[in-house]
Amino acid sequence: AGLPAPEPLGARLRFLAEADRLKGVLRATGTFDGTRRENSAEHSWHLALYAIVLPEHAAPEVRPARSLKMLVLHDLVEIDAGDVPVHALHDAALQAAREERAAARLFGLLPGPQGAAFRALWDEFEAAVSPDAVFAKALDRVQPVMANLATDGGTWTAYAVTREQLEARVGTKVRRGAAPLWSALEPRLDAWFSPRD
Amino acid sequence: AGLPAPEPLGARLRFLAEADRLKGVLRATGTFDGTRRENSAEHSWHLALYAIVLPEHAAPEVRPARSLKMLVLHDLVEIDAGDVPVHALHDAALQAAREERAAARLFGLLPGPQGAAFRALWDEFEAAVSPDAVFAKALDRVQPVMANLATDGGTWTAYAVTREQLEARVGTKVRRGAAPLWSALEPRLDAWFSPRD
Ligand SMILES: [Ca+2]
Repeated sequence: AGLPAPEPLGARLRFLAEADRLKGVLRATGTFDGTRRENSAEHSWHLALYAIVLPEHAAPEVRPARSLKMLVLHDLVEIDAGDVPVHALHDAALQAAREERAAARLFGLLPGPQGAAFRALWDEFEAAVSPDAVFAKALDRVQPVMANLATDGGTWTAYAVTREQLEARVGTKVRRGAAPLWSALEPRLDAWFSPRD
Repeated sequence: AGLPAPEPLGARLRFLAEADRLKGVLRATGTFDGTRRENSAEHSWHLALYAIVLPEHAAPEVRPARSLKMLVLHDLVEIDAGDVPVHALHDAALQAAREERAAARLFGLLPGPQGAAFRALWDEFEAAVSPDAVFAKALDRVQPVMANLATDGGTWTAYAVTREQLEARVGTKVRRGAAPLWSALEPRLDAWFSPRD
């Protein structure tokens, strides 16, 4: 009864056209050359590349192909909810509610079973409990660290971040999902955050 | 003898930092809102999403996870070789030689076996013979078509493309890897290219 089910391919093409708007969501973090802020679409591509390049440094139970899919999808909610930098997140519950609504709308554009599968993958990423999600989260957290190191501070300067805050907000999550990465970056972090004469 | 082998994680982090430059390679195609040209990094993210959303419309033998990896990697060579629009490719052999050199340099930044595996995947994509590559190529060709439809012509207007040229340069490749996509778009293409009163 009622309206005919939407044709699956048509629904998918409309979803892909709507997804294009992620290219217009600006992040606080800059590109590594320091010339401009990056957007969430190119950030998501960069993370997809991280997921392809770094699986050797993940826990053995991680299935990198699932982490990769999560990272391609993880920021779509920002089309409606915007990007809130980790160092400027003052009301986590409010932002979470915005992202929930965005997920319902955006994944709801897809044919039912596919939309539900994508939503489940995004929920898993957000929960950050499964090994695949913990690895994906670690990459999402470490990429801006590399951008800040490449641009002599970047958002650390903008948000007056201390080494201790970085450890608590970022380091713990990177360690959990990709410990060797954090260890490799620590000497450069200690040097950047140490008092300068 | 000689220099110590580069530490694998360090080499990977340098590769990922170098890859950031893809965000600075501009394509002829615009974002779907028509406000600016897209860059090859955000284009690659969009294609990764296509590969996750559209496997149901690929040939049954396609392994979408491999096509997805190819699409994340496929444009990295443009960091050195630049993007040449399909409707403005006048010396294919010259551009291919440039891309070969770029692939050697960029994938050469990675630890040997990983660099070789990525290079093999990129060669497979370029050859466009395997089902995974044919599907990936079809998506790479169809995304700018959707961008042009969203922006009332886009590069078709800029390069004075005819319906016949679009069929030869683009349609044949989309049909080969994802026939239902081309069929779904054809009515809109016929309408856009038909003479206007
Ligand atoms: Ca992110």
